[in-house]
Amino acid sequence: MFNVKSVQETLDIIRSEFQVLQRTEILPLEACFGHILADEIISDQNIPTFNRSSMDGYAVRAKDTFGSSDSMSVPLKLIEEVVMGIQPLFKLEANQASYIPTGGELPPGANSVVMIEYTEDYHDGSIFIQKPVAPGNNVIFCGDDVKVNQVVLSAGTTLRSQDIGILAALGIANVKVRTPLVMAVVSTGDEIVEISDHPFGSQVRDVNAYVILAEAKRMGLNAYRVGILPDDEERIFAKLDEILDKVDIVVLSGGSSVGVKDNSVDVLNRLGKPGVLVHGIAIKPGKPTLIAKVRGKAILGLPGHPASAFTIFCIFGKALIETLNGSQIPDTIIKAKLRTNVPSNQGREEYVPVTLENIKGILYANPLFGKSGMISLLSLADGYIRITRESEGFDNESWVDVTLYR
Amino acid sequence: MFNVKSVQETLDIIRSEFQVLQRTEILPLEACFGHILADEIISDQNIPTFNRSSMDGYAVRAKDTFGSSDSMSVPLKLIEEVVMGIQPLFKLEANQASYIPTGGELPPGANSVVMIEYTEDYHDGSIFIQKPVAPGNNVIFCGDDVKVNQVVLSAGTTLRSQDIGILAALGIANVKVRTPLVMAVVSTGDEIVEISDHPFGSQVRDVNAYVILAEAKRMGLNAYRVGILPDDEERIFAKLDEILDKVDIVVLSGGSSVGVKDNSVDVLNRLGKPGVLVHGIAIKPGKPTLIAKVRGKAILGLPGHPASAFTIFCIFGKALIETLNGSQIPDTIIKAKLRTNVPSNQGREEYVPVTLENIKGILYANPLFGKSGMISLLSLADGYIRITRESEGFDNESWVDVTLYR
Repeated sequence: MFNVKSVQETLDIIRSEFQVLQRTEILPLEACFGHILADEIISDQNIPTFNRSSMDGYAVRAKDTFGSSDSMSVPLKLIEEVVMGIQPLFKLEANQASYIPTGGELPPGANSVVMIEYTEDYHDGSIFIQKPVAPGNNVIFCGDDVKVNQVVLSAGTTLRSQDIGILAALGIANVKVRTPLVMAVVSTGDEIVEISDHPFGSQVRDVNAYVILAEAKRMGLNAYRVGILPDDEERIFAKLDEILDKVDIVVLSGGSSVGVKDNSVDVLNRLGKPGVLVHGIAIKPGKPTLIAKVRGKAILGLPGHPASAFTIFCIFGKALIETLNGSQIPDTIIKAKLRTNVPSNQGREEYVPVTLENIKGILYANPLFGKSGMISLLSLADGYIRITRESEGFDNESWVDVTLYR
Repeated sequence: MFNVKSVQETLDIIRSEFQVLQRTEILPLEACFGHILADEIISDQNIPTFNRSSMDGYAVRAKDTFGSSDSMSVPLKLIEEVVMGIQPLFKLEANQASYIPTGGELPPGANSVVMIEYTEDYHDGSIFIQKPVAPGNNVIFCGDDVKVNQVVLSAGTTLRSQDIGILAALGIANVKVRTPLVMAVVSTGDEIVEISDHPFGSQVRDVNAYVILAEAKRMGLNAYRVGILPDDEERIFAKLDEILDKVDIVVLSGGSSVGVKDNSVDVLNRLGKPGVLVHGIAIKPGKPTLIAKVRGKAILGLPGHPASAFTIFCIFGKALIETLNGSQIPDTIIKAKLRTNVPSNQGREEYVPVTLENIKGILYANPLFGKSGMISLLSLADGYIRITRESEGFDNESWVDVTLYR
């Protein structure tokens, strides 16, 4: 029924069949959090732009403080103070000190700052230094933080708060970012009903569409739900034909295995070339997965069980998104100790959800062996462990890598 | 100058002075990702609502399959098929089998499903079973996933994709969530200029406001930037007086140490009771931090260095937000091995940013000892290590806890 591909083969197909979409837009910096930087950022300036005190204290020549101590404080002549935001135009001579606030500009002649805590002011026009400083102490010199022509952020960076800070420091108030990918989630299945409906008989609510929508939102996409279509080849064809031009990715989601239905394959192959790329993956859960490329757009047909659909989206949906975005969505992987054996069949890659428990400083992973259709399982899980296709599983007490769910 | 409090004392003050804001709103489920659940969710139904097959195969009575094997397959009489979404009204008798798709409802009389892979159909009205199943195999029984009256999500849960799935399964199309906190970021300082401006002399751009805004957004807040005020007590008083009624949290951010300026303290104490709660914390970086409560609102005065401001917001801003939200913002903490000594002074808690490096499967932490004013440091860092006030630091090769930045 399937020409089953390995996980790695599938990822390779995704990465070779799809390319970065070069669509970009300009956003004001305050709206850029979580967006993907389109271009490398090269600094056109030194930061700081001046020699800056990192402490409240006294700007001095370091050598004038040498030999000072609590018991043998050294007096320096107080001259004009440095005022925040104003460039000092006076020059500091030998054996002089000038009060300087944190962030103030070092006057010419000074090369270090003595913290206010290590001085005593007897209000006689001198300041007594109680601890020597080395040249450069408590000073951030012009360009120490960022230098002209330095590459500060690379293209494809997903902007965190700290990166927003770098852009602000460089005065980049409007930023070229990649336009968020557009994803449509199409639910199919005669048995699927709206979540606001009351399922009748063996109908089920359209759970997976909402999970995938949320996950896509977490990954920064502009995702929307198309609604529920019956298992009717012509209606599915017509809907995909209508929406393909408006989106980058279509996710087919169903109560049962969309991926196993031959009519899905036929529909996708009829829509355009090359059509279905992968139909069936040596993975558990999620074997009946379908990946297609039609009119340059990506189509991902998910298995029906909630945990399977979620796992497949986290692996192959993510790989598609990363490829189209030209940007990594980093996983957080931690070490934990298993509390039970986890057997696995060779020949397929297996993903087992786990809960984590910290017992006396040791992190333990408890595998959740529930039946794969369970939605409660997903909500309980903190992450998953991956068992490669060559492995027969893990023994109790093994240390394993747990990829955290967000 | 300060009556310095420890980190723990400060957290205790925050938690005792502030309470959960009980403001809630109703959001459609598709908009709930990342929002905080206001009420506990108790299931009013069993999920699944019927006995459901988790495989494509044949519904059977398990005992009829006992003894079957590849070489000794057992024929069962094929009866009516189960149709997706439709409740089977026929009953399965002994030695009968009914084709059932994944997600289909088990007919009365059946107690298990044989996977299609372990059967052979000779199209003679029988299906040959090649592997026995135990009762319950490949079936999710009514209520197996979620039971009536089960607590599925607790109040204060920050909704992840998986939790959205549970709500969808229960048919909760509109969800009561806590209204996002409103935060205003007020920048103060004569030396601060807009990021779109060109700093003149020793002026600096308003970097921290943008970093804090992004971080607040990450934490789910509705945050906005008020703009830059000069170091003028009356203007700061007037602006805070104007905005306090409209917000839950005010962050005072400046190029230099807002917290050390006595006029900030005076302004906050004049605005209302109890006024300043904490002025100065035994922490590095970030000693000159200021926390106040005025008219029931929280005010956080940040130190001026970008790395200090960010660290303080990640600890005390986060604690304030968690307290007002009645919800934890979980940290991700991983173990890594230090690549150098990290000395620290006793008597204050120290936070050292680190980069992480995976060398042959071992995660190493490289402390970033840059000067604390550096914005580039923050952007490089993957997380931080915490050195408690009792500790003198860590030795090279120690295993330390690294809290990851997001």
